[in-house]
Amino acid sequence: MSEEKPPPVALTQVRVRYAETDQMGVAHHASYLVWFEAARSEFCRQQGCPYRDLEKQGYTLPVVEARCRYRTAAFYDDELTLEARAVSVRTRRIHFVYRVMRRGTLVAEGETIHLVVAPGGAPRSLPQEVIALLRGESRPS
Amino acid sequence: MSEEKPPPVALTQVRVRYAETDQMGVAHHASYLVWFEAARSEFCRQQGCPYRDLEKQGYTLPVVEARCRYRTAAFYDDELTLEARAVSVRTRRIHFVYRVMRRGTLVAEGETIHLVVAPGGAPRSLPQEVIALLRGESRPS
Amino acid sequence: MSEEKPPPVALTQVRVRYAETDQMGVAHHASYLVWFEAARSEFCRQQGCPYRDLEKQGYTLPVVEARCRYRTAAFYDDELTLEARAVSVRTRRIHFVYRVMRRGTLVAEGETIHLVVAPGGAPRSLPQEVIALLRGESRPS
Amino acid sequence: MSEEKPPPVALTQVRVRYAETDQMGVAHHASYLVWFEAARSEFCRQQGCPYRDLEKQGYTLPVVEARCRYRTAAFYDDELTLEARAVSVRTRRIHFVYRVMRRGTLVAEGETIHLVVAPGGAPRSLPQEVIALLRGESRPS
Repeated sequence: MSEEKPPPVALTQVRVRYAETDQMGVAHHASYLVWFEAARSEFCRQQGCPYRDLEKQGYTLPVVEARCRYRTAAFYDDELTLEARAVSVRTRRIHFVYRVMRRGTLVAEGETIHLVVAPGGAPRSLPQEVIALLRGESRPS
Repeated sequence: MSEEKPPPVALTQVRVRYAETDQMGVAHHASYLVWFEAARSEFCRQQGCPYRDLEKQGYTLPVVEARCRYRTAAFYDDELTLEARAVSVRTRRIHFVYRVMRRGTLVAEGETIHLVVAPGGAPRSLPQEVIALLRGESRPS
Repeated sequence: MSEEKPPPVALTQVRVRYAETDQMGVAHHASYLVWFEAARSEFCRQQGCPYRDLEKQGYTLPVVEARCRYRTAAFYDDELTLEARAVSVRTRRIHFVYRVMRRGTLVAEGETIHLVVAPGGAPRSLPQEVIALLRGESRPS
Repeated sequence: MSEEKPPPVALTQVRVRYAETDQMGVAHHASYLVWFEAARSEFCRQQGCPYRDLEKQGYTLPVVEARCRYRTAAFYDDELTLEARAVSVRTRRIHFVYRVMRRGTLVAEGETIHLVVAPGGAPRSLPQEVIALLRGESRPS
């Protein structure tokens, strides 16, 4: 009997910046996409393929869809924990999900879908070793 | 026999700012939520209930869900036309949809869902005259 | 007897976006640098050398110094007029000044200093025809 | 013989976010003001008077002047150390200076000047105990 391993998760801490608030007195909803991105960066680094390196090797991962559900407000100076998981890593398409937590409370959750393209925008295929790293099937050498 | 009127649409022009680009050389995906918001502001103003005034009267419309599908990249200095429509206006919940166009090309489309709350966060009900204005069923007096 | 012509000025309109406000209820002070940049873009376009084209020709103008004095607050939905002037245009260095006005009121004023470099960062010299255009000494052909 | 104590300094780490880059491939110059603000927040917290608490007590510190000198570019994913110091703390005016370092390299330096006002904008005087804390003359109780 094989057991499914849960997909790996990366945790990132952010503190809500004053510039990220709006006049409603809460973190502006667009800030969450920027936090998701920071969480995704941390995920890739932790899995052994920093996004910075991917880009240097000619793989860019533009967002083709983004979604966020806001459960409760986040406030200036709040310490938030971002969770990022790659729920699907395919040759030309990656799907990430995110959760924003403040201590035990779910603040927001969301997802992004990315294509794999060359810098000019042409489709590209992620190498198998990168796919395995992002899936948590192998460890960085 | 009554005929369904299509929901009103507001058009807003934006020019992509340099600060809105990222090192992929395109407008960053979080910028679109900011543009949607500008389009929503314009929609409310056009319908006769500027969001600024709604807030002054104690109605805030926090985003509880946002979504964007990116069809093609937008570039620095591009002139974009934003379309905003309120597809559902209810007492405590409003649903907007958006399209980002560059001349005839669809660049992105998205939606946001908003609750109606008092400044402290308690649920509030939009007055019927505001609902009628946002639905395009009446004209500003 | 020669007469000094005043340096050309470009005017740009912006409306303060909700995302640009902070929990103090005013436009966040970093937004002004983004507005200055939009005003500078407009200035270059008006003078006949759009910044987009300059970059395509291999001239980038990174900011080496920026300064802003905030005279009074700007608020969500305010319509602001941005004034941009190039007070000094030299082969390898350009100095812009800006004013942010709300109807007759001075909201802020600032300046930026830019170097002229190649995309990799090496110093480059602006062509004489670009210098003349930015100084307003010649008109775009 | 009394010796001048150097003003206290707070150190904050930030990692350059992808959203903070622009199409020049570097961190956008407006991002530095946001980092200065994060550094200032950390400074106030470290000195025992978190800015969040100051605002709750009715003291806001709007920026009336900001300045930054950019020495070299910062790149996506760079780990930067922000230094913040309060070089002058007076009843109604505070002057902060900042340095942005990447390992041993000075990336940028800047300053901000703040007034002390009530939420509505009227001048207010900082209490002596807050002044002493920010100056590092006393420790938080």
